[in-house]
Amino acid sequence: MTMTYEQAIAALIETGRRLDNRGWAPATSGNYSARLDDGSIALTVSGRHKGRLTRDGIMRVDLEGQPLTAGKPSAETDLHLAIYRLFPEVGAVLHGHSPEAVGLSRAAAEADAWILRGHEMLKAYPGHTTHAVEVRLPIVENSQDMAVIEAAVRPALLAPGAIPAYLIRSHGLYAWGKDVDEAERVLEATEWMIAAERAERGFRQAWTR
Amino acid sequence: MTMTYEQAIAALIETGRRLDNRGWAPATSGNYSARLDDGSIALTVSGRHKGRLTRDGIMRVDLEGQPLTAGKPSAETDLHLAIYRLFPEVGAVLHGHSPEAVGLSRAAAEADAWILRGHEMLKAYPGHTTHAVEVRLPIVENSQDMAVIEAAVRPALLAPGAIPAYLIRSHGLYAWGKDVDEAERVLEATEWMIAAERAERGFRQAWTR
Amino acid sequence: MTMTYEQAIAALIETGRRLDNRGWAPATSGNYSARLDDGSIALTVSGRHKGRLTRDGIMRVDLEGQPLTAGKPSAETDLHLAIYRLFPEVGAVLHGHSPEAVGLSRAAAEADAWILRGHEMLKAYPGHTTHAVEVRLPIVENSQDMAVIEAAVRPALLAPGAIPAYLIRSHGLYAWGKDVDEAERVLEATEWMIAAERAERGFRQAWTR
Amino acid sequence: MTMTYEQAIAALIETGRRLDNRGWAPATSGNYSARLDDGSIALTVSGRHKGRLTRDGIMRVDLEGQPLTAGKPSAETDLHLAIYRLFPEVGAVLHGHSPEAVGLSRAAAEADAWILRGHEMLKAYPGHTTHAVEVRLPIVENSQDMAVIEAAVRPALLAPGAIPAYLIRSHGLYAWGKDVDEAERVLEATEWMIAAERAERGFRQAWTR
Repeated sequence: MTMTYEQAIAALIETGRRLDNRGWAPATSGNYSARLDDGSIALTVSGRHKGRLTRDGIMRVDLEGQPLTAGKPSAETDLHLAIYRLFPEVGAVLHGHSPEAVGLSRAAAEADAWILRGHEMLKAYPGHTTHAVEVRLPIVENSQDMAVIEAAVRPALLAPGAIPAYLIRSHGLYAWGKDVDEAERVLEATEWMIAAERAERGFRQAWTR
Repeated sequence: MTMTYEQAIAALIETGRRLDNRGWAPATSGNYSARLDDGSIALTVSGRHKGRLTRDGIMRVDLEGQPLTAGKPSAETDLHLAIYRLFPEVGAVLHGHSPEAVGLSRAAAEADAWILRGHEMLKAYPGHTTHAVEVRLPIVENSQDMAVIEAAVRPALLAPGAIPAYLIRSHGLYAWGKDVDEAERVLEATEWMIAAERAERGFRQAWTR
Repeated sequence: MTMTYEQAIAALIETGRRLDNRGWAPATSGNYSARLDDGSIALTVSGRHKGRLTRDGIMRVDLEGQPLTAGKPSAETDLHLAIYRLFPEVGAVLHGHSPEAVGLSRAAAEADAWILRGHEMLKAYPGHTTHAVEVRLPIVENSQDMAVIEAAVRPALLAPGAIPAYLIRSHGLYAWGKDVDEAERVLEATEWMIAAERAERGFRQAWTR
Repeated sequence: MTMTYEQAIAALIETGRRLDNRGWAPATSGNYSARLDDGSIALTVSGRHKGRLTRDGIMRVDLEGQPLTAGKPSAETDLHLAIYRLFPEVGAVLHGHSPEAVGLSRAAAEADAWILRGHEMLKAYPGHTTHAVEVRLPIVENSQDMAVIEAAVRPALLAPGAIPAYLIRSHGLYAWGKDVDEAERVLEATEWMIAAERAERGFRQAWTR
């Protein structure tokens, strides 16, 4: 499922354009990566607008984060690499910033997870074949030290039934998959369920009056 | 009102692009079909993103769901076929996933229908000529067994004054019409009324303070 | 400020595309018109999707509504013509359906107007030079008899300080101006203020807890 | 970081298109400027739709606001010039109108600032390297006298830790940066945090029931 560097450049530019159209890539936020067929990682460089990426907005690093091409990798490179090291089958990691997911993480101020239950959309998570389950979307506290975030979230990522996504409070959503398409599907599905639950609350409030 | 296979392919690709632009086709959700002039059905295959369909994302099945071309039909094929068998005049069936409709179906947790009343937009339903009516949008429980959903919703579809749409709880909206354009109009109009009622609640809450 | 028929066709097609992109033209809703340099009116025909208008989606009628070209004029033609007869300086009338405006009209269930006050955006109404005013957006009950709507709203349109817009409850917004551009500005500005007031309520509700 | 007039024209036209796509440039609202390499200012002219700017929608003025090319400068030119005079390093100023920011300014009716705290997105403000801060987004009363607005907001702009943005109540947001890209990033980031806080309130309301 891995890609050449050229394929990864094209795929990450296009994904950035789509995530920005959905409002999930404001300012220079977000960062995206893909595992290449030589085992290195293509990754967005720091400080670019993800809705208008160009070739020089993507660079290569090895699994320890050492640059293999020119450029300054994203400050969150280590969170991407941790996923690739934990899960050998993962081919892409996407990190987006949506107002809905961040609003949720702030409203659920003390919670270490948001429970998603009963959604048909849960079937977008690989290996899930029914809506009749509940899954935990882990929420971890934000930090400027990636090692702190990574250590805090790792147990949840390895728990039985874990989904390929987590939310950093007041920050944004990480999602991954075997390739860029699957990672984008996981991101879209998770954001969509959060949006649906916001709409649910909009309807419920008047419902009870 | 039926189409050739080539016409159906073009129409369903274009419809998918539009529904995705409105946010109603996240991940690989949704499925769309059209009745062809030879009585068979053109249908989206399983597992594709509906906003970026290509020719090989559409296949043909007969009215019993037997594939007539290569491909794995959508898991919800039987819900499409049930509509075509019940209503010989129907030429297209569209199934989309919007956060608003799903949020509504979850908020109205015990209800078996949502009442739409007084909307000028009700005239978008074929045969309706006034806003001064109320109609029932049936809500049926979700299941991974299409026969269960179909049996549960059928009485509502055959009731006097039934509209060509129903909602599966925590899942999404089905809509149909004599052709793809009419089915899309029914889907858009239904989603629009749900969005208007959500906005109504947003205004009402402060109204009473 | 009037246009040729060819200019009106191009302008109304483009306006429809923009209003649909904003979500204000679902199904076949809305209708648009422009006064031509021979005194006749270019008008959208009945039953077309306004986001995908083509040349044959526009026809010509005289000021009494008699067709001058082939086509069935919109059912709401008389509301357009009433504006042109009341206000000789008006060159275009636009009628859109937004969830926000309709939600507002339903929440303000008994009100015959919505008061807009303090918005800088009020300066989008021709002749308005300050935000430090309040204006009335008339709300009239819906009817399938255009003469009933027209008679009910006319006094508000002729009142001192009237703005070039009104809202039909559970239906949509009418807006007009000296030309298509000005009518679209009035429509956009009015919808924008309604959206801002909905956002205001979203912030206020938590504000008081 | 300054630009030629030709570069500024291209950049401001493109920025207008993007801000309009996000819904922040309704009717003829908003105005944008950039400092040129000769010390003069390129600025949008009065009365144009900012989503559809053309070359003649941009003009040049000197730092006192005297026109150097044909055209009537925006009524808010003085607010742009005040920023350029206060901050020699500033290369661009953008003023947009979003429903969310204006809704917030109206909900926070008596407040002279909105506190943004804990957002990773705060790092979009130049010089900010952590989310673990709180910043004040100044809110100033609207006026048709630009000198009144400018005098009222200036102390907040010069306060320690000030961010390059402020909000005029019931009117809209000003944002600036060393160049057009940075100003747009500041505007996007600020609007995004406001949208996230609105979403937060949408989730919180049901949370407490």
